[in-house]
Amino acid sequence: MLLTMNPPGSVVNPGFIAIRGDRIAIMGPEPAPADISADLVIDASNMVVLPGLINAHTHAAMTLFRGLADDLPLMEWLTRYIFPIERNLKPEWVYWGARLAALEMIRSGTTTFCDMYLFEDQTAEAAKSCGIRAMVGEVLYDFPSPSYGPLENGYEATRELALKWKDDPLISVAVEPHSPYTCAPELFEKAAELSLELDIPMITHLSESRDEINQVLAKHGKRPVAYLDGLGVLNERLIADHCVFLSEEEMDLLAARNVAVSHNPESNMKLASGIAPVPGLLKRGIRVGLGTDGCASNNNLNMFGEMDTAAKLHKVAGGDLTAMDAETVVETATLGGARALGMDGDLGGIENGKKADLIILDFDRPHLIPMYNPYSHLVYSANGSEVVTSIINGRPVMLNGRFSSIDEHEVFARVREIEKEIRALIGV
Amino acid sequence: MLLTMNPPGSVVNPGFIAIRGDRIAIMGPEPAPADISADLVIDASNMVVLPGLINAHTHAAMTLFRGLADDLPLMEWLTRYIFPIERNLKPEWVYWGARLAALEMIRSGTTTFCDMYLFEDQTAEAAKSCGIRAMVGEVLYDFPSPSYGPLENGYEATRELALKWKDDPLISVAVEPHSPYTCAPELFEKAAELSLELDIPMITHLSESRDEINQVLAKHGKRPVAYLDGLGVLNERLIADHCVFLSEEEMDLLAARNVAVSHNPESNMKLASGIAPVPGLLKRGIRVGLGTDGCASNNNLNMFGEMDTAAKLHKVAGGDLTAMDAETVVETATLGGARALGMDGDLGGIENGKKADLIILDFDRPHLIPMYNPYSHLVYSANGSEVVTSIINGRPVMLNGRFSSIDEHEVFARVREIEKEIRALIGV
Repeated sequence: MLLTMNPPGSVVNPGFIAIRGDRIAIMGPEPAPADISADLVIDASNMVVLPGLINAHTHAAMTLFRGLADDLPLMEWLTRYIFPIERNLKPEWVYWGARLAALEMIRSGTTTFCDMYLFEDQTAEAAKSCGIRAMVGEVLYDFPSPSYGPLENGYEATRELALKWKDDPLISVAVEPHSPYTCAPELFEKAAELSLELDIPMITHLSESRDEINQVLAKHGKRPVAYLDGLGVLNERLIADHCVFLSEEEMDLLAARNVAVSHNPESNMKLASGIAPVPGLLKRGIRVGLGTDGCASNNNLNMFGEMDTAAKLHKVAGGDLTAMDAETVVETATLGGARALGMDGDLGGIENGKKADLIILDFDRPHLIPMYNPYSHLVYSANGSEVVTSIINGRPVMLNGRFSSIDEHEVFARVREIEKEIRALIGV
Repeated sequence: MLLTMNPPGSVVNPGFIAIRGDRIAIMGPEPAPADISADLVIDASNMVVLPGLINAHTHAAMTLFRGLADDLPLMEWLTRYIFPIERNLKPEWVYWGARLAALEMIRSGTTTFCDMYLFEDQTAEAAKSCGIRAMVGEVLYDFPSPSYGPLENGYEATRELALKWKDDPLISVAVEPHSPYTCAPELFEKAAELSLELDIPMITHLSESRDEINQVLAKHGKRPVAYLDGLGVLNERLIADHCVFLSEEEMDLLAARNVAVSHNPESNMKLASGIAPVPGLLKRGIRVGLGTDGCASNNNLNMFGEMDTAAKLHKVAGGDLTAMDAETVVETATLGGARALGMDGDLGGIENGKKADLIILDFDRPHLIPMYNPYSHLVYSANGSEVVTSIINGRPVMLNGRFSSIDEHEVFARVREIEKEIRALIGV
């Protein structure tokens, strides 16, 4: 059963997909044309195939901090745990943390993730080594970075990163100013210039918390959206993460400027930030992807949990049982994410000519029986453990639950060593 | 690693558990006493053991309606789908639907569930056949039941059910008037008498939706809590499901009367009902269990998803990052549920003398590494697929992912046949 997302809600059952190189050559209803021959045939009888999920916002290497310190006041969490570790962050920690993240994401159906963190070349190397698609970007802010040092070096680091990965089939790069409360006007302006010059997206956190709104108001006399608009950086190149606090007028402005949004409901709930007005964004035609955020505030990278939460949260928030129906939610996790990242020409659907980023799910599980509606099952019943096979860029990265070229236990062992170093560093 | 919940938050690592018959004979830190001999030894090295989860409110057989009709207005969902099917409900449908539910629950770590539905003797038979512990009760309301016919027969049906299962090691019975908006004063009074006479709990839905509040106000001139209090049925025998709409005074009253509450956050979100004031209930010392509700409004019976949602929902609802910390949430799913059902002498902890209802989880998964805090992992990172072994009433019901005496595929096949009958009945 192919859930093609072309258009969202479509089902081809039974269907076939023929892959040539990194792309879908032909797909359609069974039977496949008799003249197709293949080196590898994957029998997905009685299974469900859909475009690989796109995690539109995460900090992959923060898997290292998963469960380190939950349920604490924000400042205690940051000053006692996160800041002291990040000041001592090592590139190889980022590499192994991101590899662990890649394994978790592949196992739970994600084939592309959009990342923001430190030492992002390591994240790119980790993603490539695992065969997963990634958009990465070195985080920029007004203070020195543990990775590149003073801010001025950050622009150069971004440029180098972009040039290094320019023609890579899996990795792309974005310019990533952290947020309106940590970036001065000049930083946003330079970042926007770089984004234009290199022809790559720009990504920032935006309107995530009440504190941010208040800080930006105090500092710049404007709310965050107006602050960025005044700098001329709200445009179709920008992907804005979170967007929890938006007025109707701000949503209109984001729509008019064609800014894309990443929605991260579980992180927004866990950090007690608030509930993003996603139905209002979608009503305006804004490109909305779904993301998990990092493991320090979720604490997993599972897009199935995120879909379930997104579907339910907006129903209770708006008092509307019909809000964020299952097909719409699956769209945010596939085609919507591709649109947000500017990759919908290649990703987000099962179509002739699109990249072969596909996942296969085994629905022969007690929690997925009976089956009246596969979209409903993906959102409300599945948990990600049903993903048995993942094909990324035409390559079977995981087949029947086994990774083709990654030693999972080596990754576990390396991360457990890093866990010991982190424990020693902060005394837990 | 034993998470004993005695008291909540405790960890014994490494630990051992010796089971004699249906109970924990001795538990403690390794090494086990040398004079213990066992017929079966389960090696849980590098695994996590905790008391089996208690699903404090569900309608097991509604697995049959999983994903049948989501994202619809309430009345369309009920009148077009649920009511026409339930009018034609067959006892064997309930049996197979409840068996499917039992499989799903065992696979995801539940060892006890508290049920309300029609043909509940079938639910009890299904639970017993799968080796899972259950509290069942025939739903009572002012109109005729597809199961027992006119209401008057309902009391007798409940009495028979209670007598039949009186000495069963796995099954117990409750008196179950449906709700304040579907049950007249006389029904609640008779149900309460029966509960006292048979010395079994009484269970009802309470203050689930705004519509309920308005209907009960219009009919009885009181809000639901006051309505039940006026009938004298608020007491320590009562388990109230949902409790979404409660004033401070109503919470005080439930506490004063020692009523127990089942919290069902995912159902309350999906039906756009609202958010129960659980931190306020817990602050008052009210016994709170966690439940999934039925699959028509969730759409799974996975307590791990429910724990994650409970932890996050109350943080965003109250704007408090510290609300419903992981240990508290695990408590609602174990000891809290046992207290709510009046079974905490036997269930909800790993203690000498308690029933041997235990689950073993394999944490050697990418999404559970590193591991700083096992409670945090259970709530925020796990999804239920990590449960490899389930012991209920001293019996290994599932060992290393395999059921010891249930043919899972027979259950799947039977339910798929019923799916066809349901599709024919309502034309989908």
